[in-house]
Amino acid sequence: MRIAIIGYGGVGKAFVQLLADKKDYLRLKPIDIQLNYVIGRHGGIYDPEGIKCNALAEFSKNQRDITEFIPGGSKEVNFDLMLRNGDIDAIIEMTPTNKETGEPGMSHITRALENKVHVITSNKGPILLAYKKLNNIAIKNNVQLAIGCTTGGALPSINGGIIDLAGSEITSIEGVLNGTTNFIINEMEETACTYSEGLMKAQQLGIAETDPTLDVEGWDTASKLLILTNVLMNEEKTLENITVEGITNLKARDVADALKDDKKYKLIGKTIKTACGIEMSVKLEKLGKEHPLYGVDAKNKAVRYVSDTLGELTIIGGASGVTPAAASILRDLININRGYRYSN
Amino acid sequence: MRIAIIGYGGVGKAFVQLLADKKDYLRLKPIDIQLNYVIGRHGGIYDPEGIKCNALAEFSKNQRDITEFIPGGSKEVNFDLMLRNGDIDAIIEMTPTNKETGEPGMSHITRALENKVHVITSNKGPILLAYKKLNNIAIKNNVQLAIGCTTGGALPSINGGIIDLAGSEITSIEGVLNGTTNFIINEMEETACTYSEGLMKAQQLGIAETDPTLDVEGWDTASKLLILTNVLMNEEKTLENITVEGITNLKARDVADALKDDKKYKLIGKTIKTACGIEMSVKLEKLGKEHPLYGVDAKNKAVRYVSDTLGELTIIGGASGVTPAAASILRDLININRGYRYSN
Repeated sequence: MRIAIIGYGGVGKAFVQLLADKKDYLRLKPIDIQLNYVIGRHGGIYDPEGIKCNALAEFSKNQRDITEFIPGGSKEVNFDLMLRNGDIDAIIEMTPTNKETGEPGMSHITRALENKVHVITSNKGPILLAYKKLNNIAIKNNVQLAIGCTTGGALPSINGGIIDLAGSEITSIEGVLNGTTNFIINEMEETACTYSEGLMKAQQLGIAETDPTLDVEGWDTASKLLILTNVLMNEEKTLENITVEGITNLKARDVADALKDDKKYKLIGKTIKTACGIEMSVKLEKLGKEHPLYGVDAKNKAVRYVSDTLGELTIIGGASGVTPAAASILRDLININRGYRYSN
Repeated sequence: MRIAIIGYGGVGKAFVQLLADKKDYLRLKPIDIQLNYVIGRHGGIYDPEGIKCNALAEFSKNQRDITEFIPGGSKEVNFDLMLRNGDIDAIIEMTPTNKETGEPGMSHITRALENKVHVITSNKGPILLAYKKLNNIAIKNNVQLAIGCTTGGALPSINGGIIDLAGSEITSIEGVLNGTTNFIINEMEETACTYSEGLMKAQQLGIAETDPTLDVEGWDTASKLLILTNVLMNEEKTLENITVEGITNLKARDVADALKDDKKYKLIGKTIKTACGIEMSVKLEKLGKEHPLYGVDAKNKAVRYVSDTLGELTIIGGASGVTPAAASILRDLININRGYRYSN
């Protein structure tokens, strides 16, 4: 399988490192992956014989301009050239997310699918805005659109819904989908600190961003919930259909009181299918210790589905960081390589 | 996809009912399943136009001899006839398990694969005894051997290891894999009864069998652990490689003491990859409430994997009963239909 990386940031670098580290493992399976392109903002690398991942991983450690990589680095290497050459089977789209227009990811994904190239993406923007449209382009061109990385990275939430519940109808989705808020609440539980102190700790550790709004006000959870709902329940909802509350009003006293009752707060994204349609919300909930999501600790995420014929399915996992995110991209790529048709 | 049911017991009947109930759903996906054969011990049903699942489900409610089903029922319909006719793409092998010889499942599975027919099976015997050999026959003939139902039914333990951790190396497997023992321990926790009383309750409810040895002495857990280990870690271990303890010596007092410490007993099957090789055991363990398997209640099962690049993955689910078991067969069938190559 000849692939191209589009957007070479932290996860892209981790992915190249993974291809280097897993070379023997993949050959054993056998899964043949050849990286022909890495395309950044101002040029890229093209090697029709396959870029040496070991060398590129080493080169990338020094934050050098990829157009200087030898052999193949050039300011002339771009998305258009790649499509014209026509020597790839799949692109890994990892450009920065834009939730207003989806660009540049939207164009990359659309054009790749139209050129009968599989797409694996970590880019939430285009998927939030136009999953159904993009998936239909994939179906029409008999290629796959795989989006596992957009809804919790290493947490196999999309696989869980599509593959592990194949043939079953999902009637509810419930998840602890945001690592940052889960860390802050955990910190409040363990050190009896305030929300602000918990946030500051998360920022010091690089877990929360300088502007933590999207995480702490629940929008990251809402985005993931929306993708899961649209993909797994065949809906076309938007963020406006979700009632969203964050964790910014959580008091140290509430956390302490809950703990006394053996309960824990979690920021829960939830979709329920009712007779009147789909209800979606993101809000703090107090869970008892018998609840399957009670034990989801700071380093994990989780999703719980209820289905008609396969019962409940709770999936806990999703280690944070660029390597697990890259590994979730590799997972989608391998499953496409093994023939799975995500787009039906 | 033209299929045949081999072995028409409780799960087989539930599967036919499911095909009838899910007819519109499957057509929508679209997944085209046509049941051409149902083969029992003394004959079967053959309809090259597809057996009417609705009518057969209704017919089967009265425990009538399937050879009397019209159209197509006959004492002449058998496995040999089916292979000679050559008008099927997959068999669902559900004959009773024999853990000594694997027969008659072993012959059915072998001959189907050799005839380039996919196999989906719920039959632990042949898989316990000869997974690698059978899988190699599948690979050689470019068809699939899917065994999801053998390791916890609705619990997607095999999918979790193969698909959801694709590209990752599993370094440990840990599971609550037996519903009966989990029910008995739960009963001891909730009613402070003795082991014998818990067992009797399970037998009264039809959860435990009259001879509960395989469950309560840990051998059912050991069988499932063995299959998971051989399939997911590419091993060829046997039951003799597992240290097995059951729950028969669990005292009401131990259960009560554990509860006081906020701990719960679970019968845990565990495989760990160490520098010296594979270590496998089945034994009672006391889990604290932060452990991901703590909350696995009586009606569920669970498995937890640790992997090198995708971190931890805990899967809780696996409703009991013939319908979820049948739904797990349908899941494997749909995933093969969607192109997945379980046998690489």
